Amino acid sequence: MANKPSIPKGMRDFSQQEMAERNYIFDTIKSVFRLYGYSQIETPSMENLSTLLGKYGDEGDKLLFRVLNSGDPFTGVDFEGFRTEDGSYNAARLSKELCDKGLRYDLTVPFARYVVQHQNEISFPFKRFQIQPVWRADRPQKGRYREFCQCDVDVIGSKSQLNELELVQIVDKVFGLLDIRVALKINNRKVLTGLAEICGAPDKVVDITVAIDKLDKIGLDAVLDEIRGKGLSGSAIAVVEQILGLSGTVEEKLASMRSLFGGASASGIVSENGLRGLDELDELFGLIAAAGVSVPVDLDLSLARGLNYYTGAIFEVKALDWQIGSICGGGRYDNLTGIFGLPDMSGVGISFGADRIYDVLKGLDKFPADLRSATTLLFANMGAEEVRYVLPVASALRGLGVSVEIYPESSKLKKQFDYADRKAIPFLSITGADEAAAGTVQIKNLATGGQSSFAKDDLEGILAFLQIKK
Amino acid sequence: MANKPSIPKGMRDFSQQEMAERNYIFDTIKSVFRLYGYSQIETPSMENLSTLLGKYGDEGDKLLFRVLNSGDPFTGVDFEGFRTEDGSYNAARLSKELCDKGLRYDLTVPFARYVVQHQNEISFPFKRFQIQPVWRADRPQKGRYREFCQCDVDVIGSKSQLNELELVQIVDKVFGLLDIRVALKINNRKVLTGLAEICGAPDKVVDITVAIDKLDKIGLDAVLDEIRGKGLSGSAIAVVEQILGLSGTVEEKLASMRSLFGGASASGIVSENGLRGLDELDELFGLIAAAGVSVPVDLDLSLARGLNYYTGAIFEVKALDWQIGSICGGGRYDNLTGIFGLPDMSGVGISFGADRIYDVLKGLDKFPADLRSATTLLFANMGAEEVRYVLPVASALRGLGVSVEIYPESSKLKKQFDYADRKAIPFLSITGADEAAAGTVQIKNLATGGQSSFAKDDLEGILAFLQIKK
Repeated sequence: MANKPSIPKGMRDFSQQEMAERNYIFDTIKSVFRLYGYSQIETPSMENLSTLLGKYGDEGDKLLFRVLNSGDPFTGVDFEGFRTEDGSYNAARLSKELCDKGLRYDLTVPFARYVVQHQNEISFPFKRFQIQPVWRADRPQKGRYREFCQCDVDVIGSKSQLNELELVQIVDKVFGLLDIRVALKINNRKVLTGLAEICGAPDKVVDITVAIDKLDKIGLDAVLDEIRGKGLSGSAIAVVEQILGLSGTVEEKLASMRSLFGGASASGIVSENGLRGLDELDELFGLIAAAGVSVPVDLDLSLARGLNYYTGAIFEVKALDWQIGSICGGGRYDNLTGIFGLPDMSGVGISFGADRIYDVLKGLDKFPADLRSATTLLFANMGAEEVRYVLPVASALRGLGVSVEIYPESSKLKKQFDYADRKAIPFLSITGADEAAAGTVQIKNLATGGQSSFAKDDLEGILAFLQIKK
Repeated sequence: MANKPSIPKGMRDFSQQEMAERNYIFDTIKSVFRLYGYSQIETPSMENLSTLLGKYGDEGDKLLFRVLNSGDPFTGVDFEGFRTEDGSYNAARLSKELCDKGLRYDLTVPFARYVVQHQNEISFPFKRFQIQPVWRADRPQKGRYREFCQCDVDVIGSKSQLNELELVQIVDKVFGLLDIRVALKINNRKVLTGLAEICGAPDKVVDITVAIDKLDKIGLDAVLDEIRGKGLSGSAIAVVEQILGLSGTVEEKLASMRSLFGGASASGIVSENGLRGLDELDELFGLIAAAGVSVPVDLDLSLARGLNYYTGAIFEVKALDWQIGSICGGGRYDNLTGIFGLPDMSGVGISFGADRIYDVLKGLDKFPADLRSATTLLFANMGAEEVRYVLPVASALRGLGVSVEIYPESSKLKKQFDYADRKAIPFLSITGADEAAAGTVQIKNLATGGQSSFAKDDLEGILAFLQIKK
């Protein structure tokens, strides 16, 4: 094969530099998850297609990557029986015939499957995180990949708002450590239900929410027009206008909403669902104030992500200094495991968008500078005898946790310098026959040009020169 | 769906406990790779089938998991054209028609593809490690999975035996840290070539090696019988007997081999290949002695793993205290990237068998005891007011790196104790209204039963009680 090899579209190789940067993000996030008592699980890359199908809508089913059954999946299949009237094949039915397994599409459905399958081994409330790739046969485009990593943290088996608080604290801590300024918006699905109820249109909650979700983009008048177009009454439009017009502090907005849901809106309708949603928001904002967080947290009555899925709190995090959409989000779901036969298991979780966080850190140049250099010290290779002389010194330094390389070939020094430079190795030792005779090693700081000699067993002196604390 | 959900055969869920144990293994291995200046890359789960096919033999091709092309892969396919004479389908050809992509079968071929594709961005010698799952449609059985993690470290672009030494040092350090006693066996492919040459049967190197590889299991006489059965002459049998009968130290064995390859064997034939292999082994064992390693390293002239693949050093590591076969192995390959059009790129690498290492650590009960408890301190939930009182204390402790949970529900204390017990959380704080009034927190060591009270801002005192060094 003489053609230069390539990888499938929408897939990525990650170089050593990119892996160091990605690991920085994942390690930071994991450290915070652990600080709050969440621990990791993993599920297999392939699930039975029966587990995945029907969970992501028709569009999602089409985007599932299916794995061909192994052996001979074809013999015995009546292909003609899968023909449609226009002579093409029914791809959905035929692919189900040939494929029992599909690749994970997200981490949520496998998590629900895991909880149901292992319910007798799990201690509830179950606090887990999961960081694994998922696959979607989406049309590849800038910033959208067919394989990407999801990074989910959830607690399941507790309805307490303390869980929501914890997720807010986790968001606060993660972006604080990553040095990304963010704003956190919170809403509650029950409030959206209540809004539709006091509009006198409880069946129109999706239409109303889809419309008000566009408030930032298209403005109030266009939102009201869109709702009007869905056939809502004039008093309903007036109610939406009242709600979207609310201003003031979170407490003030919550108090105004309470009055509207209590019957004071243009429609005069009372919504118990809406009032319950406000109780939850009251409690959560109270807890946030008691715990103290740095990130600005705001109530956003137009926030509606994952509408059909969430039943309580809804979260969304955006970067303040880089335009990229949401970089983290989530919410509470009361019946995640119901699809697998375990009802009444309420949970709440958020997902960090690692690829977008990566883009923000790149865009703002916020990756730590020292990620590039995996190696602290390179011993130049001055010949076979000299290498045998430095070998025990290198071993001793590695024993103290210092990352050390010995250049494997006795190439020209220029080539060895270039290697140190390209790998951003900060210290180089050129220890030749003279040093070996004197029992010393010579080390150069490539950034400052400063160099020094040490007795070969003066590990403390060497560590100090390498700026490493013991 | 009321049926209890399940996962595809040969696949695994990993619980929090299992993940903690697996992370312990991977983190240990990674830390050692980094100490030697290797850094991580990742390649996509899917490769083009053209990259994978033909690289693992006919059997391997059958074991590749193929991913069905997305959209409608069927319309336009002439299924009848794929019929064989017996009426079944040619599964290999038809699956190639329907699938352009396959799941990674190992990390070696993707690595070769990566090196060729990115050759202009890479600094050679290229020291990389890669820890990712691979998939094989093998028949699942005890200890064999269809998805499992490989853990490879390689350096490519240098022929120096210093690279082989580094891999020996890495083996030594990894198993030292994991506290697994192992033995490392080394051989060289050129010595096996030489052996066939001085047998007068250079074309029989595979037959001879396959036979002597069974020495441990079937004994010398059976090995010689097998070689005789392959049609080797009497003098060839005598040569094999001479070689397998060699004893003494590594140096003595190498010296005897040098004499045999120099013409002193029963056949009188001289093997330049064999002598070159001995030069490499001489140099490597010399370097090992100069560097000093703890693991016992032996020359094993019957070691032949990956015969058709390796061209120089061959390594194999076995646990001394647990019967499980090889837990790590590898060797040098001179033409890995040749299949993708980049010739003369010599490399050497080893692969750690994470699943087997896991089994050894489990079997020998060598996992550290503290892996179980992700959380250090649980604040019992004594009610809404008490929770608000402890929230800032919990935040302050987390700020100091202590993993802290607050039980989310104000359940009965028994239930909260049980939660701490099942999660193996070592410290519990029962801080109620009295403590809140006094401005204190109370903490109990669940292992010893000892308990103590602290002013709520006495973080130093609390850290000391939690046995955490600042």
